[in-house]
Order: sequence, then C-alpha cells, then structure tokens
Amino acid sequence: MNARRRSHDRTETIMQTALDLALEVGYAKLSMEAVAARAGVGKDTIYRRWPSKALLFLDAVLSSRTQGLEHPDTGDIVADLRQVMTRACDLLGRPPWGPLYQDLIGEAQHNPEVAAALNERFIQPQAADTLARIKAAQEQGQLAPDFDLDLAFELLSGPLYFRLLITHEPLTPAYVDRVLQAVFAGMGPRPQP
Amino acid sequence: MNARRRSHDRTETIMQTALDLALEVGYAKLSMEAVAARAGVGKDTIYRRWPSKALLFLDAVLSSRTQGLEHPDTGDIVADLRQVMTRACDLLGRPPWGPLYQDLIGEAQHNPEVAAALNERFIQPQAADTLARIKAAQEQGQLAPDFDLDLAFELLSGPLYFRLLITHEPLTPAYVDRVLQAVFAGMGPRPQP
Repeated sequence: MNARRRSHDRTETIMQTALDLALEVGYAKLSMEAVAARAGVGKDTIYRRWPSKALLFLDAVLSSRTQGLEHPDTGDIVADLRQVMTRACDLLGRPPWGPLYQDLIGEAQHNPEVAAALNERFIQPQAADTLARIKAAQEQGQLAPDFDLDLAFELLSGPLYFRLLITHEPLTPAYVDRVLQAVFAGMGPRPQP
Repeated sequence: MNARRRSHDRTETIMQTALDLALEVGYAKLSMEAVAARAGVGKDTIYRRWPSKALLFLDAVLSSRTQGLEHPDTGDIVADLRQVMTRACDLLGRPPWGPLYQDLIGEAQHNPEVAAALNERFIQPQAADTLARIKAAQEQGQLAPDFDLDLAFELLSGPLYFRLLITHEPLTPAYVDRVLQAVFAGMGPRPQP
C-alpha cells in the first residue's frame, strides 16, 4: 500500500468516524478529540486537513451517499423528475443521511463558510442538472413555453425542504406526486377549451 | 405598578436582552449568564420561566415583530397572497428578525421541543390562515377547482424558505411575483383554447 493510498484510507476513516459519532451523540456534542481518539489518529492529523469540526462534518456528509440525484432522460419529464425527487426524499427524509444533513443545514445557518460550500458542492450541481433536463423538456413541448425555468428547481425542492426543516412531516413518494401534480397543473383557473 | 405588571415588564426585558445579545455575539455564544447580567436579574429568575436557552430564545423571537402575516380579503387572491408573502420576505430576509429566525430554525434541527413549538406557535397558524383565504378564493372561482389546497402553503412558502435557509439568495418583492406567477400558471403545457 503506497503513501497516497494510506492517506486516502485515513481520510475515509476519519470522515466515517465523524458521521458515526454524530449519529451517536448528536452533531452539537461531536468533538474533534473524540473523532481523533476513535479513528486512532492524532488531532493534528485531522486539523491539518479540516480547520474546524464544521468543515470536517461538511466534507463527511457530502462525501457519503449522495449519488443518484442526476436526472435521467427517458423522454418523460414528469417521470424523470419523480425519480430524482423520490431519491432525494429517500436520502433527506431518513436516517442515517437525513438527520446528518439536517445538522449540516443547522450549522450553515450561522457558519457562512459551511453555507457557501454546501451550495457550491451540493445544491448548485443539482440545480444545474435540473435546469438542463427541464430545458430539454420545454424544447420538446412538455412544459409551458413561457414557464420561468430558472425557478423550477426552487419550486420543486422548496416544499421538500420545508417539510424536512420546518414541519418535519414525512417525505414520501405520495408527497412527491402531489407536488409534481400541483406544480404542473398550476393553482390558477385554466381557460376553458 | 402592580406585581403582575412588574413581572410582565421583567419578562419583556429578559426576552429583548436575549435578542440584543444574540444579534451581538451570535446565538451559539449566547448564554443565560450574560442575559441575566445585562437584564439585571438573577439566573434563577430566568430559569424559573425558561428551562433552557433554546426555549428563552424561541419565546423571544416569536414574541417580536411577527404581526402582519394574516391574509386580508380584498377579493383578489393574488394581491392578497402577494401582500402577505412580501411581508414575510421583509421579516425573514432582513436584520434584525431574519438572522434571529435563521438561528431559531438552526436550533430546531436538533431540538425537537423547539421544532414542535415553532410549528405550533408560528407555522401552523399561518398555514391555517392561508388555507382559509384560498378556500374562499377557490369557491369564488379564482383558483382551479381541483387544486390541492392543502399543499398551497408549502408550495408558496417552500421556495422562500429554500432561499432563506439554503441558497441565501435575496428575498425580494420581485421574487415573490415570480413565485406567484409560476405557481398560478403551472409548469405543464396549457391546453389550446
């Protein structure tokens, strides 16, 4: 095993240990000392890579289990959005990732560095992927030709995050269907054909 | 000044002091000791009413500046929603209330008692008020007759909270207009008249 591989493994071990401990004691009580002790490394080793507990936790949460949030293109925009939104609900709405992600968002409320990195590494790539997929759908006539595409990601994600962070109501496939149905149909009266 | 009035004034002073200190040092560094010292009361006095810093902060944030979130009924549902959403953006998106409210939501992510009280005291009354207003609008033919009314509050609030808590993009009257326009029109293609 060469030095780079050992360093990679150690990084993985430290991040996994941070997640394990956060699930056991809660993010608020997570300490760099405890991570170092359980991972079997010196505190200096951790601080060399992550200047704060918040940045270690950010890296650990975003490095784990976030695959599958890219839209397929089956030609059916509703089916493709449903697939990604359902996957997002599975991820956000359940242990272990859901509570860890909620803690990360909690931290982001008073830590601008964490907030910026969360957006850059996790939110913006999803927004760009959604925009690309719905642009193609609009060109194919599957969306209203004048719909404000730049708003679509916020309209579709907003209700899921509102449940996750505010009301704590369950994030289910049935909820995804309701959101899609409502956003596609619109709240205003439709012109009579 | 009778005893009840003195107690009321002291309660107000303690809550205002908690908000002032949270704005100065940040919620994370707020301490019951510092609140007691600046408010000129004993720590026991504070703990008798609020068993934790989080519950004092919750009370203080929700007792301040949250008026004006009830819908008028001018007969124009879009105008009425716009008025309340714009007021919510003024409140949520700016100091002093915005950062305090963000801290409260951050705390709610790992404190179920705060999360439950936030919903019960602040979110549910707004949701109920929105539902009553849009029910009336639907009966008057201003909304699609089959629109999922129970979802409307989450659809309209979700994007605002997503900006507030996740992307930190500005909450402006122009943004409110875009959200209303998109939610009313819907994302799907409209039938040709």
